Amino acid sequence: MRDVAVIGIGCTKFGEWWDRSFRNLFVEAGVSAIEDANLAGEQIDAMYVGNMSAGRFIEQEHIGALIADYAGLASEHIPSTRVEAACASGGLAFREAVISVASGMSNIVVAAGVEKMTDVDTSLSTDALAGAADREWEGFAGATFPGLYAMIANDYIHRYGLTREQLAQVAVKNHYNGARNPIAQFQKEITLSTVTNSTMVADPLRLFDCSPITDGAAAVVVAPLEMAKKFTDTPIKVLATAQASDTIALHDRRDISTMDASVAAGNRAFKMAGLERKDIDFVEVHDCFTIAEICAIEDLGFCKKGEAGKFTEEGATALGGQIPVNTSGGLKSCGHPVGATGIKQVCEAVLQLRGEAGKRQVDGAEIGMTHNVGGTGATVAAHIFGRG
Amino acid sequence: MRDVAVIGIGCTKFGEWWDRSFRNLFVEAGVSAIEDANLAGEQIDAMYVGNMSAGRFIEQEHIGALIADYAGLASEHIPSTRVEAACASGGLAFREAVISVASGMSNIVVAAGVEKMTDVDTSLSTDALAGAADREWEGFAGATFPGLYAMIANDYIHRYGLTREQLAQVAVKNHYNGARNPIAQFQKEITLSTVTNSTMVADPLRLFDCSPITDGAAAVVVAPLEMAKKFTDTPIKVLATAQASDTIALHDRRDISTMDASVAAGNRAFKMAGLERKDIDFVEVHDCFTIAEICAIEDLGFCKKGEAGKFTEEGATALGGQIPVNTSGGLKSCGHPVGATGIKQVCEAVLQLRGEAGKRQVDGAEIGMTHNVGGTGATVAAHIFGRG
Repeated sequence: MRDVAVIGIGCTKFGEWWDRSFRNLFVEAGVSAIEDANLAGEQIDAMYVGNMSAGRFIEQEHIGALIADYAGLASEHIPSTRVEAACASGGLAFREAVISVASGMSNIVVAAGVEKMTDVDTSLSTDALAGAADREWEGFAGATFPGLYAMIANDYIHRYGLTREQLAQVAVKNHYNGARNPIAQFQKEITLSTVTNSTMVADPLRLFDCSPITDGAAAVVVAPLEMAKKFTDTPIKVLATAQASDTIALHDRRDISTMDASVAAGNRAFKMAGLERKDIDFVEVHDCFTIAEICAIEDLGFCKKGEAGKFTEEGATALGGQIPVNTSGGLKSCGHPVGATGIKQVCEAVLQLRGEAGKRQVDGAEIGMTHNVGGTGATVAAHIFGRG
Repeated sequence: MRDVAVIGIGCTKFGEWWDRSFRNLFVEAGVSAIEDANLAGEQIDAMYVGNMSAGRFIEQEHIGALIADYAGLASEHIPSTRVEAACASGGLAFREAVISVASGMSNIVVAAGVEKMTDVDTSLSTDALAGAADREWEGFAGATFPGLYAMIANDYIHRYGLTREQLAQVAVKNHYNGARNPIAQFQKEITLSTVTNSTMVADPLRLFDCSPITDGAAAVVVAPLEMAKKFTDTPIKVLATAQASDTIALHDRRDISTMDASVAAGNRAFKMAGLERKDIDFVEVHDCFTIAEICAIEDLGFCKKGEAGKFTEEGATALGGQIPVNTSGGLKSCGHPVGATGIKQVCEAVLQLRGEAGKRQVDGAEIGMTHNVGGTGATVAAHIFGRG
């Protein structure tokens, strides 16, 4: 397999964009990424796009062709493929782009992610999101995503003694970081009491424990490492791509507060990269809910099981800490346009490794990681990046 | 890139399966394919599944994980990825599986396709299918798929003088073949008058010009060619994988009765395989409507533009003819469970090349081709296969 590098990135501002369409959003992100890579559109060999549920959000399937068309590439007849894995759709689209370049099938490949969630009312979007869980055994029984993650949180609290303040600190940290990220949906710092006094959604998860409904798109361009220097002075090398699955229903898991697919994908990524946990300078993890970040940093091996609350409370995951987590602001503060999130994580890793992350820059960052989860952990994508 | 071979196939009988679920169907197909490849499930490295619109048909997304789980592979945490490109979802899932093996990322990969369409009423399924076209410029204006293909047919008839009987002969031939295929939804031969006297759907397309709404699943196993002989005495080599895109809306095309994406994908496939049209012994094309087969055999270069009606009428595309087309019975007679169709085409190619196609066997078949279309031609996948 050939070595692969990221040579361009682009991202819309995430938010509630009632005046903009699905098409507008991905075109903006795609054009930004292509310009960032100093490419002409005709140089693109293939596209992969992560999208969870355009079928339900905008009644549109066939997203790969739609994107190639509205990106102005229909006359080139380039292959364009949609990949779906619920909230991990972006991470898997990136992975397929990497595999395509690694195989030699393509040279210049765009991996994009997009979701337009605010064109429908909240009951429909909540139900569409429930399609990421087991519809027959969870959705039809009334389980929503806040409800499922609340079960994980309750199990975790019961077993490991996580405090309300430790959990809230995840949100406080991520809003602090997001306040330093121009694309974040929420750019205001919050305090522990903002979280602990917010509306209850699904006990123990309150409003500020939850990522929001968001519109947005992100795109990156990958190329063989050996060609990358033609396009950019700062190619970012893909050191590992890994993916793992688990049962779709939470109740079928071995342990509901350990995501075995995160453990498996993490282990595979570290093995592929030939690196250890201590080599990682920062990590973007999938914090769809605060409890998800707590589980993620343990399941990826950055601290021991049951200790992530204390680890967070002590500032180990903050900017300047032992292992900065979600420097972008995470899903919590950036927002979570489902299909776009996995690609936005890659954009953040690239910015950090280029030294272009502004006020949230991790000093001297040389190696970073991303972790993107579908559903309650039925799909996990993990990637490791290094300076090219 | 490594050479890739198909080492196992499995397919459910296609039909209206009101007593069986999405999950039942793909498990049946997947288990058949794994058994056909003489594999244990634990030997599988990755899965790709083509599915168009489970979000709307059964309110379920996250199909990759669901399939890995219900196939009993959750504990192996194998990567499982859904690919969507409307009616070409299966063809693209197969292509991603081939790329994954060619890259060296995986060895044993399952490519599956599944659609459960009959759990909703026809108005919803028609609307879900319209998601394969441009929702904003076609669907919202009331265009259905029969309507869009009727426009192609009218344009074609006007320009090239196709007769009603020539068009009907496509259906007659495909039902003849389907009557010899145990998995086909319709296993009865029909006559020209069956077609020409059937209910009008969208002028000039009548009921027997249209493929039906169908439930079904299909799966194949691919592996590196060098490993294939360990599993089977009759590996079938993948000589080419090609894909092309075009505008999603029909009205934006250069020529509405030529699918430029079919032309591009066909040319790419022949170039990759180093073969010419005369080398192909049979081809499975995407006959969602009779007119689609007429366009396909021209666009792939098996006859000149405007001559496919006469070519069909003269028997050139029939069993025993110059280039047998849709020996399986095609979408017309097998039925069209959208995500499964592209994989079923691969199953048919493998059966023909193994010499296991029974009463519809093409004598001495050595090289075959498949052609899978999304929407009205916005995505096309083309594959060429040969005896291993």
